[in-house]
Formats: sequence, C-alpha cells, structure tokens
Amino acid sequence: MVSTSTGCPSSSVPARRFELLTLGDELLLGLTANGHLTFIGSQLGRRGVMLNRNVTITDDADDIVKQFRESWACSDVVITTGGLGPTCDDRTREAIAAVLGQELVFDTGIEKTIVDRFARLGRKMTPNNLKQAYRFARGEVLPNANGTAPGLWVEQDGKVLCMLPGPPNELQPMFIEQVLPRLAERGYVRAREAYVQLRTAGIGESALETKLQPLFDRHGDALSVAFCAHQGQVDCRLSSPSLRLSDAQLQEIASECASLLGEDFVCFGHDSLPRVCADLLRAQEYTLAVAETATGGLLANAFTDICGASKFFAGGCVCYSNESKMQLLDVPEDILSQHGAVSAENAVAMATGAAERLSADYAIAITGFAGPTGGNEANPVGTIYVALYSPQGVWSKKLAYPGPRPTVKVRAVNAALDWLRRELVRHQVASTTEARVGSGLRS
Amino acid sequence: MVSTSTGCPSSSVPARRFELLTLGDELLLGLTANGHLTFIGSQLGRRGVMLNRNVTITDDADDIVKQFRESWACSDVVITTGGLGPTCDDRTREAIAAVLGQELVFDTGIEKTIVDRFARLGRKMTPNNLKQAYRFARGEVLPNANGTAPGLWVEQDGKVLCMLPGPPNELQPMFIEQVLPRLAERGYVRAREAYVQLRTAGIGESALETKLQPLFDRHGDALSVAFCAHQGQVDCRLSSPSLRLSDAQLQEIASECASLLGEDFVCFGHDSLPRVCADLLRAQEYTLAVAETATGGLLANAFTDICGASKFFAGGCVCYSNESKMQLLDVPEDILSQHGAVSAENAVAMATGAAERLSADYAIAITGFAGPTGGNEANPVGTIYVALYSPQGVWSKKLAYPGPRPTVKVRAVNAALDWLRRELVRHQVASTTEARVGSGLRS
Repeated sequence: MVSTSTGCPSSSVPARRFELLTLGDELLLGLTANGHLTFIGSQLGRRGVMLNRNVTITDDADDIVKQFRESWACSDVVITTGGLGPTCDDRTREAIAAVLGQELVFDTGIEKTIVDRFARLGRKMTPNNLKQAYRFARGEVLPNANGTAPGLWVEQDGKVLCMLPGPPNELQPMFIEQVLPRLAERGYVRAREAYVQLRTAGIGESALETKLQPLFDRHGDALSVAFCAHQGQVDCRLSSPSLRLSDAQLQEIASECASLLGEDFVCFGHDSLPRVCADLLRAQEYTLAVAETATGGLLANAFTDICGASKFFAGGCVCYSNESKMQLLDVPEDILSQHGAVSAENAVAMATGAAERLSADYAIAITGFAGPTGGNEANPVGTIYVALYSPQGVWSKKLAYPGPRPTVKVRAVNAALDWLRRELVRHQVASTTEARVGSGLRS
Repeated sequence: MVSTSTGCPSSSVPARRFELLTLGDELLLGLTANGHLTFIGSQLGRRGVMLNRNVTITDDADDIVKQFRESWACSDVVITTGGLGPTCDDRTREAIAAVLGQELVFDTGIEKTIVDRFARLGRKMTPNNLKQAYRFARGEVLPNANGTAPGLWVEQDGKVLCMLPGPPNELQPMFIEQVLPRLAERGYVRAREAYVQLRTAGIGESALETKLQPLFDRHGDALSVAFCAHQGQVDCRLSSPSLRLSDAQLQEIASECASLLGEDFVCFGHDSLPRVCADLLRAQEYTLAVAETATGGLLANAFTDICGASKFFAGGCVCYSNESKMQLLDVPEDILSQHGAVSAENAVAMATGAAERLSADYAIAITGFAGPTGGNEANPVGTIYVALYSPQGVWSKKLAYPGPRPTVKVRAVNAALDWLRRELVRHQVASTTEARVGSGLRS
C-alpha cells in the first residue's frame, strides 16, 4: 500500500521528538521573519525527521527558563537559536545552564578565537564579547567560522541540546557542517537524504498521483510516497521506511516516474526553476534576455540571484511606459496603439526586441495587469501574456491568475520559467537526436 | 527617565498574555514561511501589545488538544491560524471544541454563504465544504469575504479565543477589520496606534539616541522611547504608557525630532523607502528610471511592487553583459574598456543612459560585485557603485558591504533609495523656497 500525505515520509530512524526554540522579541513583534524555522525544518525534513514543535519566546530570562524546562522534559532533541551574543539581552546561556544544573566555564580556546577574529578584522574588542567564551562544563563547542559566538552541544539525560547563534550566515553552515553529521552519527537523523525527490511543474497533485499510481502499486508497502505542492510546482518524495528498497532501487523508481511524466518532470532533488533553466542554458551555451512589465524585475532578479548568472544572462528590461517599450525594445508604435500594452502582439514584440537588442538566443517577455487596479473587459486584472523567443520562433500565451498583486507576479514568473524550461529540454532532445542521426548512430 | 529597548513600548493597556498558535506540517517542514507570526506580531505591536509566545505544531489532533489545553490555561487571548479548511486534515475545530467543552453546531447562515460563493464562482461544491459551516454553540462567526472558511470568536472563562483561516488574503483583512476592533472594544489592545513612529535612514542607533536624548530628557518618565533597527534603517517609537502625554503632544515631540534629524528623517509611520520615494516623485510630477547590474532587478521590483507605479516609474534595465550596457543604455565602449563595468564612470554612464533613453527626470544606476565570486584588488566582493542622475546633475558613490549575496543586494538597493530620497527632499525644499521668493512671500 502506498501512503500519501503532504508531510514527510516516515523513516526507518526511531521516532524521536525534535523541538526548535527560537528566541527573540524581534520575531514576536514581526520585525524579522522566522527564517530559522524554514531552514532547520527543511534540513531535518530532508533527513527524514519532522520537527514536532517550534516555540518562539521573548528574550526574558524567566520565560526562557520556563519554556526550556518544559521543552527539555518532553523532547529528545532541543535546538535553540539566538541569545548567544555579547549584549546584556543575551541571557540564554545562563538560563539554560540553570535548568540543566550545569556550570558555565570560561574557555580560553574560545577566548583566543574571539580575540584573533577582532584582530584580523582590525576592530576593537569590547570586554562584553568575552561573555561568549563561556561554555557548559559538560558539553562541546561548535566553532563558528563566520562570527564570534560559537554554538554549544550538550548530551545529558539521554537527550541532545544544541544551541546555535542567531545570524543566518553563522547558523546555516554550522547546522549543515557540524550539527547534522553529529545527529546522524548518533542515529537521530538519516546519514543521507531520507527520500528521492522528483520535482514537477505544470501538473496538479491529483493528476500526478493518478499518473504514477500504477507504478507505485507494483512496490506495495515497501514504498512510501509523499506529495508537497507549492506555487505551481508539486514535489513527489519516494522513500522506503522499512528499508526493503535500497537507495539505488528508489532512484530507479524515480527515473521511471520521470520517464512517465515527460516534460512535466523538472529535476531530481531541490533545484529551483531558475536554476534548472540556468543549467540548461549553460549546457547548450545559450544566452537569455528578459522583458517585463507586470512582473517588474522579479523575473530578472530570479536569474541574477544565481551566482555566475553573467555566463548566460544577457540582461533585461522593465518597461512600464509605452515609450520605454519603443525606446529599449523597438516595439512598433502601431502595435501599442492597435493592440495595447497588454496583448499577445506586444508580448511577442517585447520578446523579439529583447532578444535582438541583447543578441540573446532566448528571450522571455511578460506583460499584463498584476492588479489590484487596471484591467478591462477583455483583459481583467490577473491577465498575463507571456511570450517566448527561441531559435525556433516566437510564441505567446495568455494566462489568468486570481489573487493579490504579489501572487500574480510570482505565478506569472513561474509560468514563464516553466515554459522556457520545456522549450530548452525539447531543443536539447532534438539536438541530441539530430547529432545521432548525423553520425549514423540511429538505433 | 527614558527607557530604551529594541522591543515594544509598554502601554497603558493592562498586561494580558497573548499567544499565537500556528498550525500546519508545512510550517514545521520548512515548506512555507510563518508569515502569520510576522503579520499578527507586527499588527499587535502597533497596538501596544507584544505576543508572549508563538507555538507552531503539526495538524495532528492529539497534538492540537495537548497544546491548546496548555496555551488556553496560561493565556488571556489565544489566536489560532489554519486548520479550518474542508479536508480531513483540518481537525482543529473539533479538537478545540473538546478542550473548551463546547458543542459544534451547524450554522445555516454560514452554509448559505458557502453555497452562494461556489455558485457565484461557477464552481461545483463538494460535500466536505459544509464542514466549514460548523461553529461553536457559544461563540460568534467572523465572516470571510475572500474564502469559504469563516473565522470563529469565543469568549469563555474570562478569556478570548480567535480562530482564523490559513490563507493570508483571507486572514489579514479579517484580522484588521474584525479582530482588532473587537480586541480594542474590550480594552485588550489600544484603539489606535500605541506609539508615534519616526522612521530614519543613514544614521546608526547609538548616534540617533545621542542626538535625540536632550529632547527626550525634557519629558522625563512621561515619555517612553524604543528603537528598532532593520536593514540600514532605524525606527524610533515614542509612547506615553502613563498617558501623561496626549497623542497630540507625542506627535509634537516627534515633529521636533524630525526637525533635529534633518535629512536622516524619512517619514512618520510605516511607509517603506520605495513608497516614500514614490510619493516624493508623484508630488513633484517627476519620473524615474533605473539601471542595474549587481542588484539584478531588485531595485526595479521594489518600485513595481507599488500599485500605480506606472505614474512615476518609466522603466529599468538589468545589464549583465557589456554589450547590453552599450545597446540599452548607450554606455560608451571606451568607459568599459578603460574603467571596467564596476566603476564610478560606468555607474554614471548607466544612470545617464537610463534617464536619456527613458526620458526620465531622475535615474539610479547600481553596479558592483555582489559575490560570492568576482571582485579584484581595487574592488573586492561587496563593492558597489551607485550613481544618481537628477535635473541638477549626475554623481556617483562607492560603497562596500560585507555579507552574502542577498544581503549585499538588499543593502545596495536601500542605500540607492535613501540617496534618491535625500535628493528629492532637497529639491522639494529648494523649489518651495524659490516659489516663495518668486511670489514675494519670503519671510
């Protein structure tokens, strides 16, 4: 039997209770988003563990003592974030030591690291920084390559406590390089990814399930399947909680799924749509240009978030005014006066203009009404025209998205990226076939 | 005495304990960010209340019962989000009814609203949707204008329970229009904003405090001051917990602060930097163009997130390749070959090109190395050149930001926006003075 849920596949790892304590008034006041939950939750999920609870509390020492006592009593692993800094707000270390009945000891090794770090950066160290040199008497130190406060690791009462610094650029590498391997060694999480993930686009969750079910049924209850839908994409996670299927067998089943899905299959693993498009462009040595109205730079930004984007990304235009469309992209005035800016004709002209102006092999144009104002009877708010220019030609598509402005923008960008991806895959397959025909290798 | 903290000013509202319960496996697996905490935390903060705790748990009915029992026992107000939908995952209503000892009753009013909504949208209603028509026997219904599941409101044991649907476009208007007024009526939150906020940019928290302290001291302990720093901006919140200062007096103190701060003062309230720039541009009927390399569309996107941006935003270019800089912005080849793309000269040429090509009054250009690769001895990773083109001339600035690629991008965009803001304010003041001189009104 195949179990289906939006959650995490259950795993062969004995069920242990994981809890995340995120500390900080700025989280409770909504000044900062709780990115630690997103990061740690997804990292543990990949290793077959779902967090049981996340509790966010204030920096108040009494609150910390009260909450930590409860969390420690009911969990096997407690991870805390924040509160390890040098200021007087940072009382977490002391509060937790009290609950654990542990002494805090001054560690000259940590002291040296902090002093050296300040010297290297040419900054003056204030004495309160040495507060960060205290560690639990019975515990380990997790060195911090990107900041002054090290992480702390304690094993006590058959449980694990792991305290991490708040800044994401310090916490994230520490979690991946030091915490996950320690948890895996002790059998608390899988040593590798707990599942094989297929990423799909352009197909709904129920259609996906219907298409793959006969394949899943062949493996009975040895196979566990979970679906996760997000922003026009559905991920499918295959695992074998009983370990009756090996990793190689899971990968083989995933490959069969990919073949069945054809172009709806995006990739194995966790790559984003812009990353997948970028890899396809780089592999075929193609360049890309973009032209946007409604999405206003979001599409360009998705590509330029990728380090090394200049290898394939020629550039983009955000053309709000009609004049800018004519000036930057050579859109003929007639098209704008006859069809309007929100039209298939304009989308095609913008894509063509971007490709020609930037000498790019491919170009995407997006125009439309993102709302909440604008729109007309033929093209109400939420109407989006996407055009794709490629060495094979140029086409446009009309789409419609309900929802607020930010949702329309994200959905339009994802739809455009998925179309580009399909076109690049199709072209890659065609080129390979052609090459095989050309060299007489046709099977 | 003036109290200073990064938290929320204490208020005259009697201290009650607020707790937020966010439900959903997708939050614990890191598939969705916990935006409800950010939204509800900041909305309550504005009304003088800091959430005491946020707990995120799974959709499991036993977990919900256990957690809600504890939260209800120790809080005055419990707000829940999610778990009110039509699927079998959504068991929150039943779990909580059990703890409260309440019956769930079928509400024909809700039923009619759901049936009508499906009819209006021309969609077929499946029977499980009617699960959403159940409400607590002793409780109120919060109508949902944007979805099928209404919110639920219960007053019992001298406490308040408020259950909200998960989709943000349903939850947010419901919270503002129905929940906050109800809480204010009962004296649980302030009826208006609990503080007067001054938003500043380009000045650090300690310099700000030093500058304003003498002014604060005049009001003794009648005035409470809190600072919140975020991404190159510092907000200063003035309140009078004892109510000895009226709202009008607080506003007057805030105005004195604004005068003292000069150009470092951005606005009163919560407007973003792009919004403030947009308002200044619109007020003076100026248009803006942007040209980006390192920030790759993030600057353009900041403006196009504003509804009605076409009134002032002419457009933008994201020019990754040298060819695109020449093609779209008429950057002379000599500048690129002699000074390179990451140079003051290129920034100036890009800004000028964008303004001229798009016939804009103002233009911003950003070029640099966002990292992690790239850079050279003269311009290491994190180096950013910003250029500003205005009716008064064109200038450039060299900036440097440490940190990962996304941080460098955001900081560069904020610095550019702040520069534009200062220039627009200076120009507005100059124009006003000129007009007064011209019409003989000089005082």
